[in-house]
This record gives sequence, C-alpha cells and structure tokens, in this order.
Amino acid sequence: MDELTSGIVAGNRRALSRAITLVESSRSDHRARAVALLSELPDRKALRIGLSGTPGVGKSTFIEAFGKLLTGQGLKVAVLAVDPSSTRSGGSILGDKTRMELLSRDPNAFIRPSPSQAELGGVARRTREAVRLCEAAGFDIILIETVGVGQSETLVAEMSDLFILLLAPAGGDELQGVKRGIMEIADLILVNKADGDLLLTARRTVADYAGALRLMRKRAYDPPEFPKAVPVSAYTGDGLEKAWENMGYLANWRREHGHFDRRRAEQARHWFLAELRAGLLARLEEPTTRQELHRLGDAVARGEISPGHAASQMLEQLGQG
Amino acid sequence: MDELTSGIVAGNRRALSRAITLVESSRSDHRARAVALLSELPDRKALRIGLSGTPGVGKSTFIEAFGKLLTGQGLKVAVLAVDPSSTRSGGSILGDKTRMELLSRDPNAFIRPSPSQAELGGVARRTREAVRLCEAAGFDIILIETVGVGQSETLVAEMSDLFILLLAPAGGDELQGVKRGIMEIADLILVNKADGDLLLTARRTVADYAGALRLMRKRAYDPPEFPKAVPVSAYTGDGLEKAWENMGYLANWRREHGHFDRRRAEQARHWFLAELRAGLLARLEEPTTRQELHRLGDAVARGEISPGHAASQMLEQLGQG
Repeated sequence: MDELTSGIVAGNRRALSRAITLVESSRSDHRARAVALLSELPDRKALRIGLSGTPGVGKSTFIEAFGKLLTGQGLKVAVLAVDPSSTRSGGSILGDKTRMELLSRDPNAFIRPSPSQAELGGVARRTREAVRLCEAAGFDIILIETVGVGQSETLVAEMSDLFILLLAPAGGDELQGVKRGIMEIADLILVNKADGDLLLTARRTVADYAGALRLMRKRAYDPPEFPKAVPVSAYTGDGLEKAWENMGYLANWRREHGHFDRRRAEQARHWFLAELRAGLLARLEEPTTRQELHRLGDAVARGEISPGHAASQMLEQLGQG
Repeated sequence: MDELTSGIVAGNRRALSRAITLVESSRSDHRARAVALLSELPDRKALRIGLSGTPGVGKSTFIEAFGKLLTGQGLKVAVLAVDPSSTRSGGSILGDKTRMELLSRDPNAFIRPSPSQAELGGVARRTREAVRLCEAAGFDIILIETVGVGQSETLVAEMSDLFILLLAPAGGDELQGVKRGIMEIADLILVNKADGDLLLTARRTVADYAGALRLMRKRAYDPPEFPKAVPVSAYTGDGLEKAWENMGYLANWRREHGHFDRRRAEQARHWFLAELRAGLLARLEEPTTRQELHRLGDAVARGEISPGHAASQMLEQLGQG
C-alpha cells in the first residue's frame, strides 16, 4: 500500500492507473483499501473542469486540442470520463484513445476511460475518487467529460469547479434542445466548429445562447458577465486560448471571493452522503442477503406476501426493523 | 384499524381517503400501520391504466371525458397522480379538481392528487400503495396519471397493467420530441384534439406515430397490432369508446395468455426491492443519526476527513461497517 501511495505522490502513471482500478472495484476488501489510500494521500488541489457535449459536437477533437494547449503551457492534464452509455456497450467512449492520438502520447497528459459499472451513481462516485488520485499525482487540470445523458451532467457538475458545455452550431430552433437545467449549471458555453462554412452559424448560435443566458437568474457567486457563451474551433484552434482565459478568470474570481472553497466544501458534503447511501445499499449485495432476497421476492411474485410486508421482514433480518 | 379496514372494504370514501393519507405519511409509526393495513386488505384486482401526457395535450379534459365514459358503463373509477412537479409547487396538478368538475362530483369516481414528497421515488411508492387501497375499496379502473417529466413515466408504467400516452396533434418534426424510451413502454398512443381544425393534423400525427411504432421491436407478449396509435377527441368524445375497446382487448389478450399475471408478479418483485432500499435509507432520517450526519458532514466540509472515510465511520456506527 505504501508503495502505491508513494508511487502516486511521485506522479508514477502506472501507480496512478493501478490506484484508479482499485477505487473502481466493488469488492469490499478493495473498497476498504481504497478508502485507506484516499485518506493517506496529500490534499493537492487541481482545477477540476467538467465538460459535457453530446456525440457529434466534436468533443474528442476539442479535448485533444484544448489538452495540448494546456500541456503546451507546462500544465499536467488528466482526462476522466463519466459515461453511462459505456456501461451498456461494455466499452467506453474514451476506450478509443486513438481519437485523441496526440494527447494520449503526451507525457504530461493522462487519459482514463469511464469505469464500466451498471449504475450511473456508481460511475460518478468512482470517478470522483479518481479525480482525487489524479490530484495527488500532481495533475494541474482534471477534465471530467460526459455525454449529455440523463443525470450524468449534474453528477459531473457536482465534482467540478467549472462546468463547460460544448455545443454545435445550430439554428435558433434547436436552442430549445438544451435542457434548461443544464443551461443553469453551465459556467461557460463553447460553440464548437466556428470555422469555415459554419463560422457564421456558430456566431449566431453564440448570440442565441448568450441571449438565453442573460434571461436566466444571475448567480450571487459569479462576476456579472458569467455564465457566458463564446465560439471555438477545435479544428483550427481559434478561440481555445480565449476560452481558457475565461475559465481561469472565473476560477480566480471564485477563489478570491471565497466561493471556490465553499463550493468544494459543499461538494465534499454531498459526496459523503452519496457514499453513505451507497454503503447502506451495498448490504443487499452480500451473498446470504441475496439468497433471502430471492426467496422473499418469489413469495412476493406469487402474491403470498405484500411488497411492503416482505420489505419489513427483510429489514428486520438485516437488523434495521 | 379494523374500522379503517372494514370501511375501505365497504367502499367508504372517507375511509379510503384516510388510508391514503396514512400510506403517504413518512412517520415510522404510520408506516408500520400502513404496512399492516395493506397486508390485511383483500386482494381485489382492478385494471390499472397508466396515463402520461405533457401539459397542454388536454389531459384533464381527457380524464374527465374518459372517466365519465367508464362510470357511464357502471364502472367505478379512481384517478391517482404521480407528479414530481407538485412537490416543487407545493400544490398538485390534480389539486384543482375543478378542471374535472363532472368527474369529481360523480359518486362512482374518486380523484386523489399526487402526494407531495421531495422525492419522485417516494411519490411513486406511496401511489402504488394508494392503488392497492383503491382496489380493495372496489374500484374497477385505476387511472394513474403523470406528466412526462424525468423518470415519472417509467415509474407509472411499473405500476400499471396498460400504459397510455396522450399526445397533441403535431408536425412530423415534433415526433422526435417523444423520447424513444417512452414510445417503447407505451401500449397505446392516443392523439387528442382530433376535432375541428386539428382533425387532419391529428390523423397525420396518428399515421406518423403508427409508422414509428411499426419500426420498433415487436413484443412477444402482445398481439401483433399493438402497440398502436389512434385519434381521440376529449372535447367531442369521438374515439373514446374505440380507445377503451382497444384497452380492453389488449388487457384480455394478456390475461388469456398469462402475461397479465406475470407482469403483475414482476412488478410486485420490483416494488419489494424499491421498498427495501427505501427502508435501508430511512435509517439516515432518524434524529440521532441526523445529528451525527451533521457533525461528520461538517468535518468533511472542513476537509478534516475524506467523504469516503466519513461514510465508512458512519456505516460502522450504524452497525453496517
């Protein structure tokens, strides 16, 4: 264990990979070791940037170009994914690191696909711990990427300091396609593909979203010009530096006004409760419990006992009655 | 308690209302009484019809007209709601029974608004128990209505024998607005407002949805012509009888082929697990636990202990370590 800890602290990539595999495991002995490891590690603070974008907006190209911009400035960048769809396909969107060929070969970058678990909450919890590991390994920027599916964006926002929405240029009608709830958690909207034939459309889309953002309630903890929308081109690189400047400005503003740490504290409290709930529910996965669950479930299915009554019986057996 | 039980079995509406209030309560003594009550009640089987429709499709008007059609045939009809939005507004979409003036005054109808709880899962669980109470009280048809928000449709489908989707007439483009997952759980799509100026649009919409339904995988447990789409007008009453015939035909087909009872058995098993999970998590709501949760949460927020470590400590204290 100590070897793993010191390896991570030294920035050893193999140690980091092994540690992430450890926190992703649901075996109870692995879990105990993971908890111990996370408690031992020093508390280094990276900037955590959540990034959401549906397939087709050019997210891989953006991460590649943006990641290279950051490593070019001497920053160490880790890319993690929260992808509920990867649990279905068995693979992962980031599994094909080939789509980020340059970045994946960059010694200052670390790319890790989404853990494959059946349940989004589990993926999110494990990713949050992977964030901590990457921070302890000395990464400066943690990009946490997700596809815009179900609750995944909210979960990523809950582990990020900044939440970025990557969108494609589109007609005004499609603006409605972005859920209001997502607009409300976005700190910065990047309209990608602002190049070539799509440049004008992208600019119009930026204006559309800027208008929509202005209509939303201002946040007490942000400078008045945020959240904002800007155009970028992951392909030509145009706008990437300006996007990064905006992120830095917002992060610094929050740091100076005490909001940065306050948000982190709130997030930590949130994840404590999430871990606790998951721990309680884990009891149902124990072999002896599963057997009894099956037996009672069959009785319920046959109508011999009501669902609520069976649940009470089971809770009593678990010492929770 | 016996008075409440006998009152429900006798079809006494006040007893039924009181019992529903009891199952909606989250107080632990109320919960114990609710579980006992539900176990005592006889197992009568009504036809449970889930109904989803977003605001503006004329859902209240439909329920009013469809409910009156059913009571006109001598059937007793209960209307329950699963409405996550009512928890936010503090009220309930069905709170204004005035929108179903005729039905709410019908002695053979019973309308109950959505329980106001913070969490959709809780609303769904309580509604499922309210369904059981209405059945025990002798209702023949239980209409469980919901707005198309988040997971509410899936939850309603999980407590229904038939799941109906009420839609408004629309251009072909808007067909995409209905999530594929919802199309897949719908047994019957009703395109409302098939009257006056909208008649042709409604017919075209029916054809669009019929086409979309044909492209989906057939279900082994349904007759080949289902799921289907038909036009209705809640305003003129046109199509309502035919819609009801379709529901009856499908329900009978499933009964004759054993699918009706098999689905009920699966649903009961599902709700047993849902109750069990809720029961485990309820421990966190106990006063002494809440105090300790607060103390540990503060320590986590101050960074004195990691979220995972704090969760482990808490689980140990709960005898779950």
